[in-house]
Amino acid sequence: MSMPVSHPQLNARGELKHLLTLEGLPRESILHILDTARQFIDASGREIKKMPLLNGVSVFNLFFEHSTRTRSAFEIAAQYLSADVLNLDIPASSTRKGESLLDTIHTLSAMQPDVFVIRHMQSGAPVLIAQHCAPHLHIINAGDGWHAHPTQGLLDMYTIRHYKRDFTRLTVALVGDILHSRVARSDIHALTTLGVPEVRVICPRTLRPAGLERFGVRVFDSIDEGVQGVDIIIMLRIQRERMNGPFLPDAREYFKNWGLTPERLARAAPEAIVMHPGPVNRGVEIESSVADGAQSVILQQVRFGIAVRMAVMSIVAAGDH
Amino acid sequence: MSMPVSHPQLNARGELKHLLTLEGLPRESILHILDTARQFIDASGREIKKMPLLNGVSVFNLFFEHSTRTRSAFEIAAQYLSADVLNLDIPASSTRKGESLLDTIHTLSAMQPDVFVIRHMQSGAPVLIAQHCAPHLHIINAGDGWHAHPTQGLLDMYTIRHYKRDFTRLTVALVGDILHSRVARSDIHALTTLGVPEVRVICPRTLRPAGLERFGVRVFDSIDEGVQGVDIIIMLRIQRERMNGPFLPDAREYFKNWGLTPERLARAAPEAIVMHPGPVNRGVEIESSVADGAQSVILQQVRFGIAVRMAVMSIVAAGDH
Amino acid sequence: MSMPVSHPQLNARGELKHLLTLEGLPRESILHILDTARQFIDASGREIKKMPLLNGVSVFNLFFEHSTRTRSAFEIAAQYLSADVLNLDIPASSTRKGESLLDTIHTLSAMQPDVFVIRHMQSGAPVLIAQHCAPHLHIINAGDGWHAHPTQGLLDMYTIRHYKRDFTRLTVALVGDILHSRVARSDIHALTTLGVPEVRVICPRTLRPAGLERFGVRVFDSIDEGVQGVDIIIMLRIQRERMNGPFLPDAREYFKNWGLTPERLARAAPEAIVMHPGPVNRGVEIESSVADGAQSVILQQVRFGIAVRMAVMSIVAAGDH
Repeated sequence: MSMPVSHPQLNARGELKHLLTLEGLPRESILHILDTARQFIDASGREIKKMPLLNGVSVFNLFFEHSTRTRSAFEIAAQYLSADVLNLDIPASSTRKGESLLDTIHTLSAMQPDVFVIRHMQSGAPVLIAQHCAPHLHIINAGDGWHAHPTQGLLDMYTIRHYKRDFTRLTVALVGDILHSRVARSDIHALTTLGVPEVRVICPRTLRPAGLERFGVRVFDSIDEGVQGVDIIIMLRIQRERMNGPFLPDAREYFKNWGLTPERLARAAPEAIVMHPGPVNRGVEIESSVADGAQSVILQQVRFGIAVRMAVMSIVAAGDH
Repeated sequence: MSMPVSHPQLNARGELKHLLTLEGLPRESILHILDTARQFIDASGREIKKMPLLNGVSVFNLFFEHSTRTRSAFEIAAQYLSADVLNLDIPASSTRKGESLLDTIHTLSAMQPDVFVIRHMQSGAPVLIAQHCAPHLHIINAGDGWHAHPTQGLLDMYTIRHYKRDFTRLTVALVGDILHSRVARSDIHALTTLGVPEVRVICPRTLRPAGLERFGVRVFDSIDEGVQGVDIIIMLRIQRERMNGPFLPDAREYFKNWGLTPERLARAAPEAIVMHPGPVNRGVEIESSVADGAQSVILQQVRFGIAVRMAVMSIVAAGDH
Repeated sequence: MSMPVSHPQLNARGELKHLLTLEGLPRESILHILDTARQFIDASGREIKKMPLLNGVSVFNLFFEHSTRTRSAFEIAAQYLSADVLNLDIPASSTRKGESLLDTIHTLSAMQPDVFVIRHMQSGAPVLIAQHCAPHLHIINAGDGWHAHPTQGLLDMYTIRHYKRDFTRLTVALVGDILHSRVARSDIHALTTLGVPEVRVICPRTLRPAGLERFGVRVFDSIDEGVQGVDIIIMLRIQRERMNGPFLPDAREYFKNWGLTPERLARAAPEAIVMHPGPVNRGVEIESSVADGAQSVILQQVRFGIAVRMAVMSIVAAGDH
């Protein structure tokens, strides 16, 4: 699969300059990230800490939308690589002085960071920033609106490869709020690119995006049918604030219709694994016994997430110093 | 004095794995921490900065209850030892997404930290976490509810030993809000363990915990009587929000009955020292001239607190790398 | 120009101990800072990152007034010099426990930092702290009330020297809200000390401080007249909360009377540069096309600000380790 060299994430030599989305990211780029991440995990399965790889590199964590969990994962990954990290929670600061997004970015760019990790509530903000920022800068999208969450997608791929090795024989099911899920979008792009032959989407009609079919997925109205024989179940988080509104009934009703129970999990392949981007709503999208059960790899996802973010940061920043 | 090997703070070899409480912590463990802290203070009385002892060690400061002062002390201590530090103020984050305490802990544990420093408004939270966390993790209690504040207790012991050397000839008085004070509990356990023959507790009846006598302390209703001849006076902080309620009259009345004045201090031993965990309410529990006077060692407590926290962190994390 | 040795910013050998204000700071001290900053910028115009100069030095960023931008600049500068940095946003912490400013400072001093970077809403707070803090400490004023913002003044001087080299042939205009501007005060003191023959102040009468003439400036009521032939235009930020009140009309009216437009800029010298401390209010004090135009050096100011802060920190902390 070849990509036009002008793709905004890749430089003229086809190397990863930014990580904005997994849509259109070449298979080789994804595999290179996963292979690199593998090197950051030692024989005991723990991250190798304190490598001098990014010594002298400045990483700015720009979080226009709050996320302790994702911000921490990037901060730790940067620390393990010996980079300097600056955390900036922007809602509480210059935005309230009426400064525009690009003015903020240009000002921070003038402080000579190397990497911006950006989370933003608006879809497309990281792409916009990548188009306008100084040439020495690298943008890593840490989640933008409903659009993309590429490092989550990559850590999900790492997890799947860790447990299943070969993507080309798998059936993968995503379950839940597809409509609002940047995780689902990134997962679907990555799974497709890596050659997963069957990607299933299981969701209520009210949470199904228009035109979902063009992503090459099979859509199911029933979780009992949808999980039948699958190798991987990726549960999506339901935002509680979406409950009791036009999209969703109450939590109990949602769990009855869409929650992952031991009975439903039993319909999947015997070696199936259960994934979730976290934080888990126990008793809403997943039963506690499943979240904590032998087939759950939810905490391993978090663990691999550090290595994957180390990989992304070290790859984008590698050429510069 | 021997301890059962199964004590949750000590590992099978009797080494400090967690620091949860000073209750039941063996005398040798306390003295080992104080001796180690001593090595982090140079001849000029300043901490020795930038030792590579904890290079590659990750310390997560998890503050479920706000405290700039204590959080800073742990952060600085970790920095001086060359550890990586991640600060997480949790009230503002995942708790508001409805995630449980243990889910938060398990998720953060998956990021492979080595040490959790935990402050929590609920008594027992650090113990609960120590019981459920991954085996490679070390928990340091930075204050939980009314239960314990062991690093404050240890720095108080360091301070007392610095000025008085021998614990076995001292009379120590704690004055103020014993009922709500985790500092008082930790101090009483440590003083008793270290062989202080007379520990006095001076407090209003409304702020006296039930069953106080079983801790082996002498209880006084009058500060004038209670401070008579003591070598150490540890003033406790009054929470202003407890004033004008069922527990306490107004601040002026409190100061009149329980405040440490120069006249009252004069009733203590001539070389008596005055301690306070800070922040001081001047004119409420202590007169300014006493807080700033020649017998006050309040700022020295803060200073020793850095070395003591360096000691605790380096001891618990020592076995692992 | 000679200064009394007792000046609170300089030690007995005339070396910079604190940086509190540019008022009265000797010309040689200013030039030494600018020369030092020059060494932190490499041939490509970027800061040199990760010098071990301040390894083992602790910098506490004490922000009693919120400022993401300035706090970040100091944090990055400290990181580039390998110092340890502790960020403390104080409004949200001990102040709410009723602790006094000096108690907070004494407590933090006991933790053995080397440098306090202080921003405070009250004029004079850093001077007060410098008078009362422990002798080993260095205070850097990061902006206090309307009084002074010396690192901004210094980075403005660095910028002017970078583009114009010789201060003694320049005409410089400051435009806008002089009354509330600590930047204006610091700039005026520095420009005067460095021998700029003509400093102009252009502002509405309601924003003109009493006794402005004693600073040796020329006051203008009209921006069209004031910018005539100047080499440097320093635009000041208008606080939006001051609009529609006793001081100022609405933003549109302000822009009409005092905003920098291309037409007004054309009245300046052909090679004139436009400066602004940021964040810019586009369409209020300056037209976007000017802020982004060829003569604008606003982002270069931010860039030089890192090097200047590195210089100040390394100079004040140099003697101690």
